[in-house]
Amino acid sequence: MDGIAVRAEETYGTTEQRPKILKIGKNAIWINTGQALPKEFDSVIMVEKIHEIDEERVEIRAPSYPWQHVRKVGEDIVATQLLLPQNHRIRPYDVGALVSAGVFSVKVREKPRVAIIPTGSELVHHRDLKETEALGKGRIIEYNSLILAGLVRECDGIPIIYDIVPDVEDKIRHALTTAIESDAHVVIVNAGSSAGSKDYTVHMIGEMGEVLVHGVAMMPGKPTILGIAYGKPVVGNPGYAVSATLSFEQFVRPLLFSLQGRHAPKSEVIKVQPTRDLPSKLGIEEFLRVNMGKVGSGYVATPLPRAAGSVTTLTRAEGILRIPALSEGISHNEEVEAELLVEESELLNTVVVIGSHDITIDILADEIRRNGRNIRISSGNVGSLGGLIALKKGTCHLSGSHLLDTDTGQYNISYIKKYLKGVKVSVFNLVLRDQGLIVAKGNPKGIKGIADLVRDDITFVNRQAGSGTRVLFDYKLNQSGIKSETIRGYDHDEFTHMAVAVDVLSGAADCGMGIFAAAKALDLDFVPMEREQYDLIIPSAMLDQPNIQTALETIRSRHFRERVISLGGYDPSESGRLWMEVEGD
Amino acid sequence: MDGIAVRAEETYGTTEQRPKILKIGKNAIWINTGQALPKEFDSVIMVEKIHEIDEERVEIRAPSYPWQHVRKVGEDIVATQLLLPQNHRIRPYDVGALVSAGVFSVKVREKPRVAIIPTGSELVHHRDLKETEALGKGRIIEYNSLILAGLVRECDGIPIIYDIVPDVEDKIRHALTTAIESDAHVVIVNAGSSAGSKDYTVHMIGEMGEVLVHGVAMMPGKPTILGIAYGKPVVGNPGYAVSATLSFEQFVRPLLFSLQGRHAPKSEVIKVQPTRDLPSKLGIEEFLRVNMGKVGSGYVATPLPRAAGSVTTLTRAEGILRIPALSEGISHNEEVEAELLVEESELLNTVVVIGSHDITIDILADEIRRNGRNIRISSGNVGSLGGLIALKKGTCHLSGSHLLDTDTGQYNISYIKKYLKGVKVSVFNLVLRDQGLIVAKGNPKGIKGIADLVRDDITFVNRQAGSGTRVLFDYKLNQSGIKSETIRGYDHDEFTHMAVAVDVLSGAADCGMGIFAAAKALDLDFVPMEREQYDLIIPSAMLDQPNIQTALETIRSRHFRERVISLGGYDPSESGRLWMEVEGD
Repeated sequence: MDGIAVRAEETYGTTEQRPKILKIGKNAIWINTGQALPKEFDSVIMVEKIHEIDEERVEIRAPSYPWQHVRKVGEDIVATQLLLPQNHRIRPYDVGALVSAGVFSVKVREKPRVAIIPTGSELVHHRDLKETEALGKGRIIEYNSLILAGLVRECDGIPIIYDIVPDVEDKIRHALTTAIESDAHVVIVNAGSSAGSKDYTVHMIGEMGEVLVHGVAMMPGKPTILGIAYGKPVVGNPGYAVSATLSFEQFVRPLLFSLQGRHAPKSEVIKVQPTRDLPSKLGIEEFLRVNMGKVGSGYVATPLPRAAGSVTTLTRAEGILRIPALSEGISHNEEVEAELLVEESELLNTVVVIGSHDITIDILADEIRRNGRNIRISSGNVGSLGGLIALKKGTCHLSGSHLLDTDTGQYNISYIKKYLKGVKVSVFNLVLRDQGLIVAKGNPKGIKGIADLVRDDITFVNRQAGSGTRVLFDYKLNQSGIKSETIRGYDHDEFTHMAVAVDVLSGAADCGMGIFAAAKALDLDFVPMEREQYDLIIPSAMLDQPNIQTALETIRSRHFRERVISLGGYDPSESGRLWMEVEGD
Repeated sequence: MDGIAVRAEETYGTTEQRPKILKIGKNAIWINTGQALPKEFDSVIMVEKIHEIDEERVEIRAPSYPWQHVRKVGEDIVATQLLLPQNHRIRPYDVGALVSAGVFSVKVREKPRVAIIPTGSELVHHRDLKETEALGKGRIIEYNSLILAGLVRECDGIPIIYDIVPDVEDKIRHALTTAIESDAHVVIVNAGSSAGSKDYTVHMIGEMGEVLVHGVAMMPGKPTILGIAYGKPVVGNPGYAVSATLSFEQFVRPLLFSLQGRHAPKSEVIKVQPTRDLPSKLGIEEFLRVNMGKVGSGYVATPLPRAAGSVTTLTRAEGILRIPALSEGISHNEEVEAELLVEESELLNTVVVIGSHDITIDILADEIRRNGRNIRISSGNVGSLGGLIALKKGTCHLSGSHLLDTDTGQYNISYIKKYLKGVKVSVFNLVLRDQGLIVAKGNPKGIKGIADLVRDDITFVNRQAGSGTRVLFDYKLNQSGIKSETIRGYDHDEFTHMAVAVDVLSGAADCGMGIFAAAKALDLDFVPMEREQYDLIIPSAMLDQPNIQTALETIRSRHFRERVISLGGYDPSESGRLWMEVEGD
């Protein structure tokens, strides 16, 4: 403590009524925190308890006791004491303890180095491309190595990314030999772990060492190879991003921690309710990435697509469900455990949006983050009707919908009355937007409207039943008196506006119904037909939740409206307006 | 999929009974996973489902459907889609998604740079010392800056450690000016934040900018200064390691995350039962570091010493209890929330040892880690009797004890019978060890045994009541017919063997009773008196727990015994032996 050093016995008997005066330099010495106690003094009185009379004298009004405010030698660390055990990860505090104990160097384990060899003749390195450049036909940008390198760093390892190796036996042999002879502790070959005609990895590992495992009973990630060559672990990782990631997490991650004498930290696990049945193949353990959020009293999990090549299922997932090998799946009635990929507090701040998707929902998500709010939007695209069913089941916070009642011309209300029995919801406008026919650039077939769809030289692409766009399209057909059988491609469904636009761009179809923004994004032409109403349906009971309030405030903001207008084909003049409160009956 | 590309309509009608033959190059083309589908083909059949007749012909036994095993353009990522919102921390997967979408650069926030200025004329930089070198009188090794730098890195910031600045006004002004004018985003001055005569920090910040806060209602960390100078946050951090750390965590950590557009991750919180009442000062929020473990069905928390200068309370803590400003403390009957400093899984692997401490318990902890077991030993030193009381209260897994029954000459058993009513325990030997008088190097006062302690020129240092050493000493006094009043220093208690040895080393006492290892550690001399029995008392109900089993296996191992022997004054010939099972009555 800052104050004066004294001899305790000279202070005995001091009281408020009988203060004592001490002479500086004789009975007392000024002292600061951290200074050594001068010889022949045994106690400290805090500066706050002292009255300074003049430069030579101080007055005290209470006694001190021996060793008051004095830290004795060895109180914290003494010789022979164990500061840290072996195989312990050194934290910032530990560095402090070591140095304060006079230990200036300790033996530590080396960080594991991991050689990552991307293979595949179709792969292109991103540094060989410009951002705006189109890829050559059949070429793929190599990015697995970047994901794997990041995952290695998260395990406190050091990644070494090799150049892309084409599917040529000698070149793969050379790269693998180089990596095995290098100072890397672990080698990952990505990919070539399957049974394709040019999958040399397993053959090479067998040639140089021993293949311990080829193929594991898990999905994704089944074609994993585990081998050893010259005492070095060599892993053949599958090629699809999701498979490569899971294979890394299951096999390489524990290895890297073990090489550091550590145990891999466990993911947090919470109980969730799946939003639908999840059938799974018997005999194989399945790892299913899911969107999660807390709706009402519990956590719900909606599976992301099972596509092993879909990197967005990695970026969008909040958790993983494991379906054991001896199970044929999970029923939606079962409460199951999910491993968290985000913090639980983040999950509590996740707004689950299920229904029809619109680009302006992405803008909403982005605007909320721009404002520094710690809220995530997790959105699932199942069409407008699917969204109403999710609201009824209580598996989302809100739903995007644009269902036209062809009898009344009113949007959404009659559907809510029909499908949301007993649920009181508030209907807010998100945007008004233009629907029409997406056609090729320059409209080479001269499509002017719905009447042209019956032409023999025109192939149409449709949207799935239950989507708002399909309802609108069928309504338009009906109005025009056109029979669906007369339209070539009426049976060909796509699930999003962008998928329709891609079909038009690739020539798979001449036109399809969708929003202006989808046509604009792919530089296609557009034949407008209708300005429709796209609404957010929110259970009224959830309206006072802060996250929902923030979402509503955001769509009413000037910044959101400006960004929506700049997309083209949108009208935000009603954005955030409450149309009405409705209850299903 | 690896296999052949086909036209689906050419496969219709195929069955097991009516297989179809396709011509390679005409009706079918070999294809591998990841390759683009050749023009005019619309489906893929897996290689596993094909029978190769010769180089020109393959046989199929089932039809294909359009787009079977084909991933369509835009299925994963399409133009206009939101990949990642703003203010999002980029994870390995996100890098993959960005690159696969052709985004090769993104705007990111700068990592915050933090200038750390250690101040204090008493401080010595460790690079100016050799490990074996004694510090000059009143000098302290500077280590706070190393802890703070590590904490900055844990917040993904970049620390810049300045040279030590002595307590000279001009030098502090110069260092602070340099830091404020540098490219650092935040400046920490450590310390000089209190009211000592040479605490210039607050004065300097006021001179260059504005002091916003001087002193906060928390403990430790009270003398924190928050200021701003030329738009840059300047923090005056207290000097004691524990205070400096807490002040950083409460004020600098959230700031660093906020500068990155992120929210600081929250610590996990669990419910714990304090092992004793924890009084606290009204009007100030207290952060108490605690040892924790799961004993029986719940978590227990034992407070570490409140000493703000004790860096080992940082390294040893498993959690923090917050006692609110408006509380006078926590009762041991209250279940309260504790913030975890270790993973919960680590806590489940913590063996809580409370009782008498012995260096061989540190060796046990170290040996368990050496063997790669993920088990922590958390040990609290409260003396042998305190350990029995902890066992009775159910606040520890096992207890170290060396209590001599002076009537029977037997160790521990009669005490267990008296204090552990209704608790059945198993008593295992840890070690036999030599107790005696610790005397100065060369034994200058010629102390030969207990009879010398009545001499006028000899000052003794005692151990606290309830410790096994005190019991043994009192027994020896009694045997020799010496009255305690005749011993100078009998009333001066220390709580550990090492504290007694330090008192002898510093000259505060001429001798004290303790173990040989303590004398040897400080290069003192030793007058042996007794070979005593130091046992581990374990509730029999816990014996089959894997962690306890591992501890017992370890103390029976050759490696443990060898290390114990090398300390001197220990005999491990009975280590791990079960003496008996006893129940209190």
